[in-house]
Amino acid sequence: MEALKERILRDGENLGSGILKVDSFVNHQVDPSLMIEAGKVLAERFADCGATKVLTAEISGIAPALTTALALGIPLIYARKTKPVTMTEPVYVEAAPSHTKGVSVFLMCSPEFLTPQDRILIIDDFLASGQTIQALVRMVRHAGAELVGIGALIEKAFEGGRRELGSLGIPLEALAVITEMTDGQITFAD
Amino acid sequence: MEALKERILRDGENLGSGILKVDSFVNHQVDPSLMIEAGKVLAERFADCGATKVLTAEISGIAPALTTALALGIPLIYARKTKPVTMTEPVYVEAAPSHTKGVSVFLMCSPEFLTPQDRILIIDDFLASGQTIQALVRMVRHAGAELVGIGALIEKAFEGGRRELGSLGIPLEALAVITEMTDGQITFAD
Repeated sequence: MEALKERILRDGENLGSGILKVDSFVNHQVDPSLMIEAGKVLAERFADCGATKVLTAEISGIAPALTTALALGIPLIYARKTKPVTMTEPVYVEAAPSHTKGVSVFLMCSPEFLTPQDRILIIDDFLASGQTIQALVRMVRHAGAELVGIGALIEKAFEGGRRELGSLGIPLEALAVITEMTDGQITFAD
Repeated sequence: MEALKERILRDGENLGSGILKVDSFVNHQVDPSLMIEAGKVLAERFADCGATKVLTAEISGIAPALTTALALGIPLIYARKTKPVTMTEPVYVEAAPSHTKGVSVFLMCSPEFLTPQDRILIIDDFLASGQTIQALVRMVRHAGAELVGIGALIEKAFEGGRRELGSLGIPLEALAVITEMTDGQITFAD
């Protein structure tokens, strides 16, 4: 998606150590129009996968997952990292190790919404090491649902997430694939 | 907003003690079309306030705040509850006591995005005791920005948030105002 790549080059910051700051349009401040456009493009790429629900993880996956779900005309589920008081029944729980935070977070999802009848499209803001997405994949499997696709706004290809997820044999799409972040530069695939 | 009230009556659950479960369309599973519609209605109600940015708090405020910002054609900022690795500069921090969780959470917002030039519209999913919104209001003030409106999808009027926020003299709108939740019932204003 050219508009996203241009925006990354214009407003993204390479903070070194493979860390990309996109806080001005994705992660803290959000550009709603860009998210709507990204959701449409992701929905097009997964138009034929027959998804019944989009699944993401709190927090920064919510915006692109919401707009993708909107474009597909299906609900969004976001796995929770904290248990709300309304979550009183047993839930699926998966640990997702975060190498940037150095700890694991728990992702929780209610079997009320993630069911064996569902065909799940996972959407997140970043595909980096793929640890968060792997946790969502395990959750989908434990629920007996079918995983039909994985999409991300931005892939940091040098962190190897695609290699790990590739063995699933599931369509995997990212709208901006970054192959290198050395010397303050940001290099895209193609 | 009639569609929201009808949805609350159909799919919301009164769990007792004033707790309303709307996990099937707002808080865990999200109905994107309903959120788009709610965002349009909130944007209409605040059309004349000249907002330059919408501000919300993680997590469940993100969906309605995103769609309101979209309808107004302005950016969204969501105050973070956890510090991402990309947040390296000093940030505004406010404690928001959560009476349902029994602890305080810290809300963080970067002065890069919340500036003295901004006119801020605060949007959240719930207006209950108003503690989270009060924390956002303090943050707006500390940043020297102007607060121009406060909106919520659902107001639990019996928790008194509007009384506390009313002294600010700022337009305050909620799309579904619940006045009573006794005996398993949900009663709306009007």
